[in-house]
Amino acid sequence: MHQLRRLTFTAIVAFFSFPLLAASNVITNEQKQTANDLIETALKSDLGMDIVTSLTTEIGPRLGGSEAEKRARDWGVKLGERLGFDNVSIEPFTMPFWDRGHLHISLTSPYQQDLYGTALGGGAPSKESIDADVVYFRDIHALSDVKDGSLSGKIAFVDGDKMVKSQTGAGYGQANQRRRIGWQHAQRGGASALVVRSVGSDSHRFPHSGMMSKDGDKWADIPVIAISNPDADHLRRLHGLSKPISLSLHSESKWKGEVKSGNVVLDLVGSEKPEEIVLIGGHLDSWDLGTGAVDDGAGVAITTAAAALIANLPTRPKRTIRVVMFGAEEVGLLGAFAYAKQHDANLQNHVLATESDFGAQTIWQLVSNVNPEATLLMDEVGKILSPLGIVRGGSDVPGGGPDIIPLAKKGVPTIRLNQNGQDYFDLHHTPDDTLDKIDPDELAQNIAAYAASIYLIADSDVALKP
Amino acid sequence: MHQLRRLTFTAIVAFFSFPLLAASNVITNEQKQTANDLIETALKSDLGMDIVTSLTTEIGPRLGGSEAEKRARDWGVKLGERLGFDNVSIEPFTMPFWDRGHLHISLTSPYQQDLYGTALGGGAPSKESIDADVVYFRDIHALSDVKDGSLSGKIAFVDGDKMVKSQTGAGYGQANQRRRIGWQHAQRGGASALVVRSVGSDSHRFPHSGMMSKDGDKWADIPVIAISNPDADHLRRLHGLSKPISLSLHSESKWKGEVKSGNVVLDLVGSEKPEEIVLIGGHLDSWDLGTGAVDDGAGVAITTAAAALIANLPTRPKRTIRVVMFGAEEVGLLGAFAYAKQHDANLQNHVLATESDFGAQTIWQLVSNVNPEATLLMDEVGKILSPLGIVRGGSDVPGGGPDIIPLAKKGVPTIRLNQNGQDYFDLHHTPDDTLDKIDPDELAQNIAAYAASIYLIADSDVALKP
Repeated sequence: MHQLRRLTFTAIVAFFSFPLLAASNVITNEQKQTANDLIETALKSDLGMDIVTSLTTEIGPRLGGSEAEKRARDWGVKLGERLGFDNVSIEPFTMPFWDRGHLHISLTSPYQQDLYGTALGGGAPSKESIDADVVYFRDIHALSDVKDGSLSGKIAFVDGDKMVKSQTGAGYGQANQRRRIGWQHAQRGGASALVVRSVGSDSHRFPHSGMMSKDGDKWADIPVIAISNPDADHLRRLHGLSKPISLSLHSESKWKGEVKSGNVVLDLVGSEKPEEIVLIGGHLDSWDLGTGAVDDGAGVAITTAAAALIANLPTRPKRTIRVVMFGAEEVGLLGAFAYAKQHDANLQNHVLATESDFGAQTIWQLVSNVNPEATLLMDEVGKILSPLGIVRGGSDVPGGGPDIIPLAKKGVPTIRLNQNGQDYFDLHHTPDDTLDKIDPDELAQNIAAYAASIYLIADSDVALKP
Repeated sequence: MHQLRRLTFTAIVAFFSFPLLAASNVITNEQKQTANDLIETALKSDLGMDIVTSLTTEIGPRLGGSEAEKRARDWGVKLGERLGFDNVSIEPFTMPFWDRGHLHISLTSPYQQDLYGTALGGGAPSKESIDADVVYFRDIHALSDVKDGSLSGKIAFVDGDKMVKSQTGAGYGQANQRRRIGWQHAQRGGASALVVRSVGSDSHRFPHSGMMSKDGDKWADIPVIAISNPDADHLRRLHGLSKPISLSLHSESKWKGEVKSGNVVLDLVGSEKPEEIVLIGGHLDSWDLGTGAVDDGAGVAITTAAAALIANLPTRPKRTIRVVMFGAEEVGLLGAFAYAKQHDANLQNHVLATESDFGAQTIWQLVSNVNPEATLLMDEVGKILSPLGIVRGGSDVPGGGPDIIPLAKKGVPTIRLNQNGQDYFDLHHTPDDTLDKIDPDELAQNIAAYAASIYLIADSDVALKP
């Protein structure tokens, strides 16, 4: 039905606004042939898999602001040079560095059992070990009702439900509340620490890390620890048995001052309108528990490989294609904000932006947020992507990916090639985010879709801005 | 074809050896009705799930010889009393205690990255941290060829392949070699430590623990560490890139002297031949990383619940049904050997033995190793189990389960209700062996099969020994 609405809308727009432009004219037969050739080449190529293998194996975990992230930038520069990009650079920025440090958390009553937990991003250290009774909260709503000072000397545990799985990742926002703002209520209640059921759709014994939200410009003064779904189930059952629950925890997580990070920028300079930029990318940093294969080595590999295939064409497309490997995304979109600020003067030249940052499963939908004429172009792009199992979705879907948000806010048009996220939150921010989780065929489908669509947009004369 | 062979064999035996005994006579209509009623009751009952929930939640991890295993024995006694067993006792034995202690293992060259590892059972401590270059061996065969003293000052890493998945668990024995005997070759080579690809069929970032084999009566003098499949993949890729690999590891695992353990024995005393014992059971201990839900909380729950359903019948079956919750199975079948020794004088009265120790997935096959007349009985039992999706398998399959091996060696007849082990080695000996992995319906199917078959055998006059 949504689909039907879109088609009707498009037909109306086509009839009333642009009667002279037949849909078939926005893409030439030659462009169409080139796009199909790119798809064919991408599906046979190992380049994307080679890139994500190299990044995860030769660099490994690369927390925003870390020495490993710096090595990743150098890796990105070398990769860009090797793949024949015209301009390759690092755009540095500074950022505050949060370090996870060591954590130990265990159940001490009704008996001793180690728990599988990890500090949440932005959390404070425990100084020494905290040994305290637990106050159980069924969900974030119950914790939100806590009275000021009523948790003094206690550890708060906020349960909740396992994140709902979906193709779109729709369960994330709701589940994420306990991770984002739980600490504000626990701290207001006077708790010594907060333990939360981590935000993930799996039943594995991995805690999911992730950043908390600031309260204004203040981070938590207490340790905040996520425990795995099976561990949270365990505490829930003990609570159900009316067993007194106590925990012992020691966390070294803390802020460590300003450090350097940066975005890696790789350009294929346009042959006719080099000043017009079609921006694609992923983020180079990862959480430190895994090796950042699906989040977001895959996105870096998909977009870099897609651009590299376009670089192999006999001529450059008309517009510049820019691949940005954003730094420090996980810890607050810091590279994205730095990019938007550093390029503020010429954002009007960014004709489109999109990011791949939702794993490595197949793309199933193309959505866009561009002007009506450009919507017709996207409809035609959608037809070319259709054999890849991709359906055309909404033409008024803002976003484009996390690192694109600051650009979209400033009016840069976006599209998004939506990936199947059914299994993404099984792995997201856990030690289990490793290379073996990527299916080479699914990765190649992503690259085919990016290569074809980005080529067609970059080689088009259609303006995308409203 | 195997099935066909068996049927033919049975038919021949029936014709030539026991022409006067019609198969239909070995089970009366009344017994058949009772067995079917037990199946119906078991499929509706929550008892098994309640038992394994209680054991994993209220006791948690319970390493052989630990304080937690003692609490588990007390739990077993209380459970047996509550469920109406006629005799409930603990049969103590002593054993050497191996403690895992703390482990830290990380890659230090070509760059720093923590690895997910765990000490293997029987391993020695590292004293202080071992920082050394790695010598890579593709598999146990390559390590076996190592020259004496050639690994001095090095850490040996023995790779291998991810364990092959199968319904029967057939991949375990082959994969297990590196865990069992790898240390003997590494130590002979003079290595400071051995790291092995852990034995599991999953691609999760969990190391699988497990016991090593003694060399005569000697345990390893070096630390032996299993790392997860994704971590082993990582080292393999680095090796493939000809990167120099160094590791840092510190392990506290060690032997800590003699401690007490015990088997919990629950009897339903037979109404006509109380001296004849049909022994079923599982093992009460677990590895310490998970909470021992599938290994072997499930087996304890299945066999105890099955016997408890039989206890609810108006009269006891003719023979005694004994549930044994074996202690210290994981660390070398210590409870099983203690039981066989302690009951040596009356093992001739153990008419049958079988154990449930292969997870909680559905039973798909009934195999046996009893005399020809009893084989006919098992064929009839098989027909009654058939609606549960269980096929009759070989009538000459020795075993009966790990803890039954010492009894089988002394001539006790066995059967086994083979479970689907397809996913068992994804979880086996890892932190991920937790309650959420058990499907209540699959557990109930197990209990139904045990209740019906054990009732029929215990209420039979057919001798099972050759």
